[in-house]
Amino acid sequence: MEMNHYNDPSIIDGCTVPERVSSRSRIAPSTVTAGGISFGPDGIVIIAGPCAVESREQLLVTAEAVKRSGGMMLRGGAFKPRTSPYKFQGLGEEGIRLLEEAREKTGLPIVTEVMDTRQVEFVSQHADMLQVGSRNMQNYTLLKEVGMQKKPVLLKRGMMATIEEFLMAAEYILNQGNEQVVLCERGIRTFETTTRNTLDISAVPVLKNLCHLPVIVDPSHGTGHRWMVPSMAKAAIAAGADGLILEVHHKPEEALCDGHQSIDPDELTGLMSDIRKIALAVGRYIVEPKTKA
Amino acid sequence: MEMNHYNDPSIIDGCTVPERVSSRSRIAPSTVTAGGISFGPDGIVIIAGPCAVESREQLLVTAEAVKRSGGMMLRGGAFKPRTSPYKFQGLGEEGIRLLEEAREKTGLPIVTEVMDTRQVEFVSQHADMLQVGSRNMQNYTLLKEVGMQKKPVLLKRGMMATIEEFLMAAEYILNQGNEQVVLCERGIRTFETTTRNTLDISAVPVLKNLCHLPVIVDPSHGTGHRWMVPSMAKAAIAAGADGLILEVHHKPEEALCDGHQSIDPDELTGLMSDIRKIALAVGRYIVEPKTKA
Amino acid sequence: MEMNHYNDPSIIDGCTVPERVSSRSRIAPSTVTAGGISFGPDGIVIIAGPCAVESREQLLVTAEAVKRSGGMMLRGGAFKPRTSPYKFQGLGEEGIRLLEEAREKTGLPIVTEVMDTRQVEFVSQHADMLQVGSRNMQNYTLLKEVGMQKKPVLLKRGMMATIEEFLMAAEYILNQGNEQVVLCERGIRTFETTTRNTLDISAVPVLKNLCHLPVIVDPSHGTGHRWMVPSMAKAAIAAGADGLILEVHHKPEEALCDGHQSIDPDELTGLMSDIRKIALAVGRYIVEPKTKA
Amino acid sequence: MEMNHYNDPSIIDGCTVPERVSSRSRIAPSTVTAGGISFGPDGIVIIAGPCAVESREQLLVTAEAVKRSGGMMLRGGAFKPRTSPYKFQGLGEEGIRLLEEAREKTGLPIVTEVMDTRQVEFVSQHADMLQVGSRNMQNYTLLKEVGMQKKPVLLKRGMMATIEEFLMAAEYILNQGNEQVVLCERGIRTFETTTRNTLDISAVPVLKNLCHLPVIVDPSHGTGHRWMVPSMAKAAIAAGADGLILEVHHKPEEALCDGHQSIDPDELTGLMSDIRKIALAVGRYIVEPKTKA
Repeated sequence: MEMNHYNDPSIIDGCTVPERVSSRSRIAPSTVTAGGISFGPDGIVIIAGPCAVESREQLLVTAEAVKRSGGMMLRGGAFKPRTSPYKFQGLGEEGIRLLEEAREKTGLPIVTEVMDTRQVEFVSQHADMLQVGSRNMQNYTLLKEVGMQKKPVLLKRGMMATIEEFLMAAEYILNQGNEQVVLCERGIRTFETTTRNTLDISAVPVLKNLCHLPVIVDPSHGTGHRWMVPSMAKAAIAAGADGLILEVHHKPEEALCDGHQSIDPDELTGLMSDIRKIALAVGRYIVEPKTKA
Repeated sequence: MEMNHYNDPSIIDGCTVPERVSSRSRIAPSTVTAGGISFGPDGIVIIAGPCAVESREQLLVTAEAVKRSGGMMLRGGAFKPRTSPYKFQGLGEEGIRLLEEAREKTGLPIVTEVMDTRQVEFVSQHADMLQVGSRNMQNYTLLKEVGMQKKPVLLKRGMMATIEEFLMAAEYILNQGNEQVVLCERGIRTFETTTRNTLDISAVPVLKNLCHLPVIVDPSHGTGHRWMVPSMAKAAIAAGADGLILEVHHKPEEALCDGHQSIDPDELTGLMSDIRKIALAVGRYIVEPKTKA
Repeated sequence: MEMNHYNDPSIIDGCTVPERVSSRSRIAPSTVTAGGISFGPDGIVIIAGPCAVESREQLLVTAEAVKRSGGMMLRGGAFKPRTSPYKFQGLGEEGIRLLEEAREKTGLPIVTEVMDTRQVEFVSQHADMLQVGSRNMQNYTLLKEVGMQKKPVLLKRGMMATIEEFLMAAEYILNQGNEQVVLCERGIRTFETTTRNTLDISAVPVLKNLCHLPVIVDPSHGTGHRWMVPSMAKAAIAAGADGLILEVHHKPEEALCDGHQSIDPDELTGLMSDIRKIALAVGRYIVEPKTKA
Repeated sequence: MEMNHYNDPSIIDGCTVPERVSSRSRIAPSTVTAGGISFGPDGIVIIAGPCAVESREQLLVTAEAVKRSGGMMLRGGAFKPRTSPYKFQGLGEEGIRLLEEAREKTGLPIVTEVMDTRQVEFVSQHADMLQVGSRNMQNYTLLKEVGMQKKPVLLKRGMMATIEEFLMAAEYILNQGNEQVVLCERGIRTFETTTRNTLDISAVPVLKNLCHLPVIVDPSHGTGHRWMVPSMAKAAIAAGADGLILEVHHKPEEALCDGHQSIDPDELTGLMSDIRKIALAVGRYIVEPKTKA
């Protein structure tokens, strides 16, 4: 019943798929490995953690909770792109060091955002995966810079980027020699205002049809509401997503950033169990977390 | 883990929910019954059938196939709102009579669109459920007219209607005394062009939180691509939808209307089996078709 | 420098322009005459009046003010399409009679909205021009009905309608034999929230290039802010619009509908003088109001 | 009739205007001077030139034509943000040197884009004004970097940016100490496809109401069609814009980038004459080009 991976990309007329990301250029979907965790066509990867690294305590408590709940990878922003210059801008390099400490303690690999070409080399030396955020999806010099690294990249779709532009942005990275790219749908901007963005779940089958890269979904930014995260997380997996990235905070009401869309550790535990059922229903499984070395 | 129905509608600030549709006005989610089939919080209803009634043969063959595949209700347009005046405009009253014949033969209740206040009384006498289409979601005299009938109404979201406008449109119907309304998310218009519309799956949890009416999803119009229907159908159920409405044609490549987004009967059979698994994973079940009287 | 009317519609690829409205089907732009006032390629027509007819006094005072300020045609809604069923729905037939009285007193021809096929014949007997509103732009049975009348039609662009869909809607009217159609751009729905809609001024040159019908602009609905009406009115004329439709109320702060976007009679007088200068700058003039018979 | 500059920003509820850019923080609109040319509340500035610097000959011929036509400032991209990695990426530093040669020959000050924090110091030493392009409007480290320079900045609105986000981006620059910022509306992304973007002319009065910075308009990117540039350029000036930035190429059909939206020198000459008339009609004038030193 399900279309296979190479069904027919050409049925989406008018969308130019560049060569290196195209599903026509590979025999099978790609697997991307970050810190020992593999994103790909079989297992489903759950990345979780706070929007921003705020303090040592906040990060370590949340990281332990992610670990306990079954999350396989830790997210946390050290360099934060904030709409207002007067909002918390992140802890910078200190945040990266705290992420490393959390990895040390939990064994969870870490993914964190780079916003500037000048940060890329430093972050590459410390993180397991580099995130390029929505606002920088068409920051081409940044894409080229991460394309020159030997680290996997989590590329988030711009909030008003077409699928074609998203694939072109990924192509910039592959074209520099770095083929370790995971795509992330995180909601697009529409006229609707009850949700922060409109999570474009249909981007999952479209992207998986057109390209060979793994595709994950961010239901936290995609909805902007903590209580909607479970429904949309399940929808994403049912639609064929290869993973999720979730905002988790040990005290969402005190978060310096995006608390209203962060679930707490108990909710994460419950959600993991729900996700496991949906994964089974679509013939997949949840990746096992690494045991701490 | 899952929010219950009355969790807290007020968390969506700035959205005015009118009184009669509001989840605050009822103790429990509503059940709407059309031709013996109940839409509501437990069972999931699958409506299927051709975009347009084209001929006796086409309709009867498709209706039998829908029946065999396990669909519980037959859809088919007799009065068709077409963007161009030069495209097939539907068979009109003759189409309604063919739908009745198909119901007679299969036992499936029928739902069909009304486009004009002058058609409402006639269609009400023959169909089991009246559909108000996307383009007429803010045709307020039509809403009032169907509000005065004793037939259940399937109200489709306008392709650029906010959630608030959608709820206000339903309120027009309830306000006339007809409380038998099922809401249908069918894709909104965005900048993205690889899909015909952007199916707003997040509308499912939002609507179910704000109002007490059943909510179903149309992945055929929502995507515009036959091969995407299964993924998005599963996503809708995983997100909590109470049903689906699917375009099915016995020969999609020959359809006079929307063939590119119609699945064929074999695909419907496969999809029903996939949907059953997802329904189980979210603690629900598929409604059993009525046995022909 | 300016492109002439038939420059090259084909430069807008991918937009199907139906036959009867196409600029390729006529030697010159059409002129549409309503109550003795001509919309066309030379003179610019200013329609003004309240959003809704609220009372005899309100309408007559406003109509006299429109007349004094130099407006050539009176607008006013008797049948009102309101988002909420609990808001003022218009005076109905009584409103039409008040419009006739205002015409009697001022000599200004009247344009008013029809929302339902059942109202069309009645309104046609009394008004000089029939308006089809945004929410009904794809109400095809209504379009066909006004297409069978001998009255000119003011067709407003749907807030979600593409240029192609707008032209197709006009084609429905022409195809029934009524070629007296004026198109009206009134703002489209986008992500931007500082304005009620985004007034798509570029629709003016696009429409005038693709079709032969007159094109006017509604800066009141297009912006939703009284103080922005003058800037956008001037922009519309500078871009080549053939007229404007403006919401004017003698006491905007007391209006039952859309007071925040209505200018008062003094502002209209000032705006007429500004518009006259822009018209001259683009080689056009303001149509003279009819003297009362 | 016209609102004055400080009419009432508070009428746009829900839009947070940050302190330094707010019209409430200044007694009068700001004047920004780049290479001797002043952007501000009286004179209108016309910037023109090719999308990309392609070659010495192309740039010098176009620059001379811009000078002859009455343009006051030369634009040209040396570092080009292109959607596809396989399209012409600009001449880089060599392009900057050619722009300097064109300035030397014509006396026109030059504005050119910076895409990367690492380019900012170099470009600041050579150009008269730094452009931050649409795709980098929320590249906050770049905004901070140009905020630390002593050069004026031309900040283009992101194609997906709300007015509030646009003002916040400008605030990032002012907050670093650089108050010489000119805002540029260049079209937003909507569902409409006959134009490349939807030029949001209403952003002109909104921005001029909310902030004290000069506002110019780019009708070339805003429409994507050469033949629409004149209409929309006139509309922008009529709406109150303080200037225009236009793509001009001596042979548009041979341009390496954006030829379909570039006017030629003869069209620029005609347009300057049309713009002059509109400027007069709104009580303004066209800034005189500097005489070559």
